[in-house]
Order: sequence, then C-alpha cells, then structure tokens
Amino acid sequence: MGGDFGPSVTVSASLNFLLDNTDTNLVLIGDTARIDPLLIDLDASTRSRLEIIHTSVCVLEESNPVDALRNFKESSMYLAVNLVKEKRVDACVSAGNTGALLMIGRHILKTIPGISKPAIVASIPFPLVGGRGLLLDVGANVACDAQNLLEFGVMGSVLAASINPGRNPRVALLNIGEEEHKGTEQIRIAARLMENHEALQYVGYIEGNELFSGKADVIVCDGFSGNLSIKTSEGVVKVIAGLVRQGASGNIMSRIAGLLALPLMKRMLVKIDPSQFNGASVLGLQGTIVKSHGSASISGFQSAIAQALREVKADVPKIIQEKMAGIAQPCIC
Amino acid sequence: MGGDFGPSVTVSASLNFLLDNTDTNLVLIGDTARIDPLLIDLDASTRSRLEIIHTSVCVLEESNPVDALRNFKESSMYLAVNLVKEKRVDACVSAGNTGALLMIGRHILKTIPGISKPAIVASIPFPLVGGRGLLLDVGANVACDAQNLLEFGVMGSVLAASINPGRNPRVALLNIGEEEHKGTEQIRIAARLMENHEALQYVGYIEGNELFSGKADVIVCDGFSGNLSIKTSEGVVKVIAGLVRQGASGNIMSRIAGLLALPLMKRMLVKIDPSQFNGASVLGLQGTIVKSHGSASISGFQSAIAQALREVKADVPKIIQEKMAGIAQPCIC
Repeated sequence: MGGDFGPSVTVSASLNFLLDNTDTNLVLIGDTARIDPLLIDLDASTRSRLEIIHTSVCVLEESNPVDALRNFKESSMYLAVNLVKEKRVDACVSAGNTGALLMIGRHILKTIPGISKPAIVASIPFPLVGGRGLLLDVGANVACDAQNLLEFGVMGSVLAASINPGRNPRVALLNIGEEEHKGTEQIRIAARLMENHEALQYVGYIEGNELFSGKADVIVCDGFSGNLSIKTSEGVVKVIAGLVRQGASGNIMSRIAGLLALPLMKRMLVKIDPSQFNGASVLGLQGTIVKSHGSASISGFQSAIAQALREVKADVPKIIQEKMAGIAQPCIC
Repeated sequence: MGGDFGPSVTVSASLNFLLDNTDTNLVLIGDTARIDPLLIDLDASTRSRLEIIHTSVCVLEESNPVDALRNFKESSMYLAVNLVKEKRVDACVSAGNTGALLMIGRHILKTIPGISKPAIVASIPFPLVGGRGLLLDVGANVACDAQNLLEFGVMGSVLAASINPGRNPRVALLNIGEEEHKGTEQIRIAARLMENHEALQYVGYIEGNELFSGKADVIVCDGFSGNLSIKTSEGVVKVIAGLVRQGASGNIMSRIAGLLALPLMKRMLVKIDPSQFNGASVLGLQGTIVKSHGSASISGFQSAIAQALREVKADVPKIIQEKMAGIAQPCIC
C-alpha cells in the first residue's frame, strides 16, 4: 500500500518479479479492493505463487512512528513484518513510512544478538571506476557511538560480500580528515575497534569527496552524516541538471551545445544520482526488511524485491550474527 | 608563508591587492629572503604601503595545532595574529594550517563576549537563482550544542548582511528532514532558540539537497556536518568532471557531444564548486581572520584579502558583539 503511487506500482512490480523469478512466491498485504483489479490478466500458474492478505488499515506517510506502532497493529506494514517474525515469509519489502517501518521492525523482529541498533543502507555508485558500494547508516540513528559504528561496519561488510561473493570488502569510516586525530571521539575509537577486528578489512578514514571514488566498498557513519551526504549529492546533481536545462535555453550557440550535451549529461547524472539505486536494506534485525523509495517506479520497486531475495539467499542476518559473536561486548557488570 | 605555493602566490596576490586598493596598507610577515626578490619591480609609492616583518619560523601544514601554539611563537602565523591583537593591523589573512590558525587565533584574540566558539564560514553558490550564501561551521568544531548553533546563526547573519547590505538574511538550520521532530536534540533546541531570537530571520530546517537552492542565505550546522557537505559536493563535481572527460574520449559521436559539452560543463562545474570561492572567515574572535585555501591561486588569495577588507569595513566583530548582547546566556550560578 505504501509509496507515492500505492498498489499501481507495488503490485505491478510484484507481478513482474514473479514472472522473472519462477522459484519465488510473494504475499501481498493490503486492500483487496485496490489489489484485485490489478490481477485480472494474471495467468493461473503465476497466480498460484501469489497470496493476498486483506487489510484496509495502512500506516500513513505523515504518521508519527510511535503512533504507527501503537495504533496500527492491523496495518499492512505491521502484518507484513509479523509474517517475517512468524517465518511465514523470508523477507518484507515496503515503500511506506521509513520511521514506522524501523520502529515496527525493531519492535517485532528485535535486533540480532550483538547488534545494538539497526541501520539503513544506501547503495552508492562509483561512476568513474565502475561498481557500487554501501553507505550506512543513512537515517535510522541520528547519533551513534563507536560500538554502533563497528557493528555497522560488520553488517555492511556482510551485505557487500553477499552482493559481490568472494571479495573481501574494504571498510572505511566517513570522517572530515584523513589524519588519525581528526573527527569525533567516537569515530576515533571506532577506528581502533575496526583495526583490531579480524572479520573486517578496515582501510581507514574516507572524506566526503571520496565517497564515490570506489576507494572503499563499505563506508560507515552515523545516520545524520549518511543522510546528509546522500541528500547533498542529490542536491548537487539537481543543480547541475538545472544548469544543463538553463544552458540549453540560452543564446543559439549555447543552445546547440546544450542540446548536444543534454543526452550525455543525463546519462552522467543517472550514474552519480544515489536515488537511482532503489532498495535500502534495513540491517541488524532478526529478519530481512528492504525499504523502497516512496517515489520508486515499477522497475525501481522490483529492484527492491530483488535486493530482498539476494539477502535471503545469502542468509545475511545469520552471517551477521556469526561475525558479531566474535566481538567482545562492553561489560556492564 | 602558507599555502601550497608560499610567497610566490601570497606576495604576488598582496601586490595586486595593493594596486587595486590604494587606501589600504599591508604587512607581510615571513622570510625576507623569500619575500624581497618578489618586490624588485615594485614602484616606490606602492612599496610605501607595504611593511615587511621578518621571521624564518613557519607553522608547517602537518604540525599539530597544539604544538603550533606552544612551539611556534616566532612563527609568521603567531606574529600576524598578534598584530591584530595589538591593533597594529585590522585583519589577518593566512593560507596556512587551519587548525593552528584557529588555535592561535582563539588563544591570542579570545572569543567575542557572548560567543563560546569561533566558526569557519564557507561561501556557497546558488547557481540556479544567482547569488551566494554562507554555510557555518565547516570545520572549527566537530560537535556543537544548541547555544553554539544559535551563535553561529547570529554571526552568519551579521556577515551575510555585511556582504549584501540592506537585506535581512534568512537563516536556516541544516537537518535531515523538514519536520519539527527530525534531527538531533541540540538542533531541535537550536530551532526554538532561533525562532525566539529577535535579531534573526529564522526560516526553519533545510536539507542537504537544498543547500545550493538559495532558500536560505545563512545555513547553520556543526563543523562535522558542514565540512562533510562541502567535501561531498566537491566529490560529486569531481566525479561529473571525470565523466565529462571520459565521455569526450568514447566513440566518435560521444566525442563530438563531449567536446561540444565540455566548455558548457566547465562553466557549470565552476558555478557549483564550493572550492571556487576563496576566503573563509573565522567568525567569533575579537578581530578579523580570513583563511585562504592552501591551493588558492594568486587571484584566489587576493579574494581572501578582499574578504578581510570587507569585514573590517563592516566592523563584523563589533556588530556580532552588539547582537549577542541581547541573548540570555545559560545561568551557571
């Protein structure tokens, strides 16, 4: 039911996904009055891999996450996450309210033993060298201590290895300088924890200007910094796209240059725009949740479902738990 | 003596500045063995507005700021800031070690009454709507409380008004959402302080994707976030410039498009690249200090001197003190 376009995108994407993945079943949870009309042309074989659970309750985009948890226990989001808990499904994909999804996910699924906080992961492109990396957290936790950052590093490393099997992901901490004494105390402590952690290939600090360079496969930061970096990048891309349009409407020479440059520019901007990569993993829970952009297209939402399938096949939560088992927890005795 | 190119840039820029500003005198502090050869062709009238103070000691780029303060009291940087303190000069401009400049500046000049911490200000372009805004802090303080953020708002507002006299600058807080409940507790408290402060035109939260939109003239954040945003923007611009070069070396059609687009792109990238605007004010001290990029060109360093002159003429530290006098300080009794 979530996202800017509701079932018209999410259901259509689900049907495309089922056609592409004949070994997979999907459960759709939401208002059958809006879902059923979209299934009319579906063949019987595909329909047999689709289950519909009806509810007319839906967490709103503007709902406060705490209210969503308290007052929306019949919502499609709550029911979907609960199916993960009951192991009736392997993963949940939602384009709905991010804060509510986190709150409900954490409440129902709980964090993996050894993980204090879940994190949201953004996929970041490396346009000049090819490939993609992971940035986390990008908004689940505004403030993080060193232990949280270490956990994010381990979680990101497991996810990156599931995307590129056989490679040992390089993990960096996002900071405002490359020297050892730079940044906050928590980042400096996290650097020491990461250096000494055997499951991590820690490669040092990375600055904002190297985010898209491909120098690290997993870049770790608190949710405020991660969200800010992603949004700032989107803003720069938006301004440059605007300048291209302005350039294409100037005098005759710049119009010609602008028109010729426009397709080239569009291809470039797509390469660098982080919002092009849909399907943000919520890592650290005892179950797989993938968050789609609210504005995702049909193919975008399908990418988010594919991301969930990849994580299920790689058993990401289980491997995170195994890797975390080696980490000494702060003693509270 | 500072910057990547030393006197060859800073002295040349100083001479150009003197020729353009015949009512201004400059004092150069550094190694006469390196400065004097650059003055050979200088006419007597300009030379009379130039004073040289010799020292062969120089804070290194890699020096730890604390060491710079303790062990480099004969350094050009220390002597220059001390001249501001002694009111023998009105302002100090340096392309040297930023951390050392802040440490020495704060030690010698002290903060303005009512200001807890100095801040470094970056000039940010608004390419689509024209004009420029200010972002602070961009690196002086990794962590800031609500009172610091309020003070940055007042300081930025005074500086913005000195650049565009007669306009009441719009002040925003950088955050990861526009809703009231978003962000850290300190940002939320700062929002309330700013709303209630009569000397500020507070316009709410702004996200990273609106940084270059022109929706606010002064954007306030802690030094970690500010530095990260600026560096991330530089990184995106660098990647797009790289893509343009790659595009201009592909097949024949994309080479033609790339070559035609290249000048247009270069003009655009200059418009959005924050590193193009040289001369970062260090605000909050009892005296004017402007920090130049280490990599600044002759015209870039001249811009930094011009920025210092503007601040002196507008009496920025005095106006900040007056505006701060209206703010209730936290009671420690």
